[in-house]
Amino acid sequence: MTGAPRIALAPITDDLVAQAITGAGAQLAELGEARALVWDGGPNGFPDLPASIEWVQLYSAGVEEFFAAGIFERCPNVVFTSAAGAFAKSVAEGTMALLLAGVRYLPEHIRAHSWRQGEFFPHIGTLRGATVAVVGAGGIGREVIAMLEPFGARVIAVSRSGRPIEAPNVADTIPAERLSEVWARADHVVVAAPATDGTRHLIGKDELAQLKPHSWVVNVARGSLIDTEALVAALRQGAIGGAGLDVTDPEPLPDGHPLWDLPNVIITPHDSNPPQLRTAAFAEHVAENVRRFAQGRELIARIDPAAGY
Amino acid sequence: MTGAPRIALAPITDDLVAQAITGAGAQLAELGEARALVWDGGPNGFPDLPASIEWVQLYSAGVEEFFAAGIFERCPNVVFTSAAGAFAKSVAEGTMALLLAGVRYLPEHIRAHSWRQGEFFPHIGTLRGATVAVVGAGGIGREVIAMLEPFGARVIAVSRSGRPIEAPNVADTIPAERLSEVWARADHVVVAAPATDGTRHLIGKDELAQLKPHSWVVNVARGSLIDTEALVAALRQGAIGGAGLDVTDPEPLPDGHPLWDLPNVIITPHDSNPPQLRTAAFAEHVAENVRRFAQGRELIARIDPAAGY
Repeated sequence: MTGAPRIALAPITDDLVAQAITGAGAQLAELGEARALVWDGGPNGFPDLPASIEWVQLYSAGVEEFFAAGIFERCPNVVFTSAAGAFAKSVAEGTMALLLAGVRYLPEHIRAHSWRQGEFFPHIGTLRGATVAVVGAGGIGREVIAMLEPFGARVIAVSRSGRPIEAPNVADTIPAERLSEVWARADHVVVAAPATDGTRHLIGKDELAQLKPHSWVVNVARGSLIDTEALVAALRQGAIGGAGLDVTDPEPLPDGHPLWDLPNVIITPHDSNPPQLRTAAFAEHVAENVRRFAQGRELIARIDPAAGY
Repeated sequence: MTGAPRIALAPITDDLVAQAITGAGAQLAELGEARALVWDGGPNGFPDLPASIEWVQLYSAGVEEFFAAGIFERCPNVVFTSAAGAFAKSVAEGTMALLLAGVRYLPEHIRAHSWRQGEFFPHIGTLRGATVAVVGAGGIGREVIAMLEPFGARVIAVSRSGRPIEAPNVADTIPAERLSEVWARADHVVVAAPATDGTRHLIGKDELAQLKPHSWVVNVARGSLIDTEALVAALRQGAIGGAGLDVTDPEPLPDGHPLWDLPNVIITPHDSNPPQLRTAAFAEHVAENVRRFAQGRELIARIDPAAGY
């Protein structure tokens, strides 16, 4: 089948996304006449798909809510793609901001109202020569690895397969089942793995105990990957250097939660991919997948319902 | 002349530096018998040099105090090298921490005690696609340029000569005399130029007025390069996004100074190159210059008394 594929865009007809679809060589169409759907909403209101729909592009990188709503089961013959990777660059930038702010002791600097150089000196660390464990080597993890390179940080990457990641600063790529080897080797940890049943409380008491008093843990994946209670205990004891959290468990983090009051915690309330940066990134992602769809090539960020992400 | 050159180390005989000297193929000697001096102190107590001394390696990157003390005039036949570049990587890391913390709105995040996502969203910027003016393309500037690359920031570099800097993200290198063109083109500014008579108040009222409401100005050079009064006014008016200052004018910044109370200022009290990271970096620098000296090659970070740095 050749020619411009017909693609529906719903529930929001954003101009930037619409232009991305047509600019990539497709034609906008109503759902009933389309071969694909770009769905820029959540699972509520997700339509019954006509048999003509071969592919659905979702708007978010994490799609647990679509799993929970049974959307993928309802549509076994449809290829779904997430926006995984589309927002990776912005989230990776937020990750680096959290990690650097932690390593360079910025929270206390920001609270300071006097010149406390001598007091601050010993607390200032460096990424140079440090080993950063990047747990999850998807879009975000790979961007973080690239950003770490000019800082002179060595990376131990953890991926499902453990297939070696080709980057000059990746010292080792290890498969998820050998994750337990990582903690003792790492100075800092970046959590960027998908939230699945298998990754719940991936970091708990035992893992935190193997980290170092200067270690920062940055979570930009999902709050459930870290055992919050164990994290609070480790932070209170000074067992680790600090935590940078774009995601929390529970989320939103309620007022009065101990994480709000710990001096070595930086919380960015799931805002490392803010709306004003999102649409442009999503439009680029859609354009790439529309081009691939039109050419019959493999789509990026295809959801694997069996794997759970 | 061949063989291991004799090099004196004073006033502090640090083991790491001593090992760097001998490890690079030189022999430690008393000043009176040496061809070179590694001086790891300030200008006070700087010795009268015997005629045998051809080269002096100083410990700091900025050497204004040695100029002020007339050291270079006193020793016109001696080649002086600074530690410029040795500490560049750590200072560049501190620069990136300040810039990212500013662009990602971390100061207000760090002060927050509740989940203020909706309020924070519009304040979160990105380096991706942003133009960063890097004023001063010495060691620090070049490291910062390399670190900016994976973030997708374009750089306008400013150097004395304007000789094009070969880096994939440098859109333009302009000579210092065309500095006035930079402000209107930049999203953010990193100041990493040497402090000379010509660079005093390089950024003042007129320059700040050309920046943007989201612009962050990061100064890791010397406080005198920015007109503090003009900076405070611009910050109060919201004319720029914020300032990250490793150096201030006056320095140390006195208690009660308005910069301490502005919410969009991050002050790292000249601590981006802390002592515990410094000796290792200086030792590496010394080793490289000792090797070059032994081989009669050009030394790195040679001070140009006529240029004033």
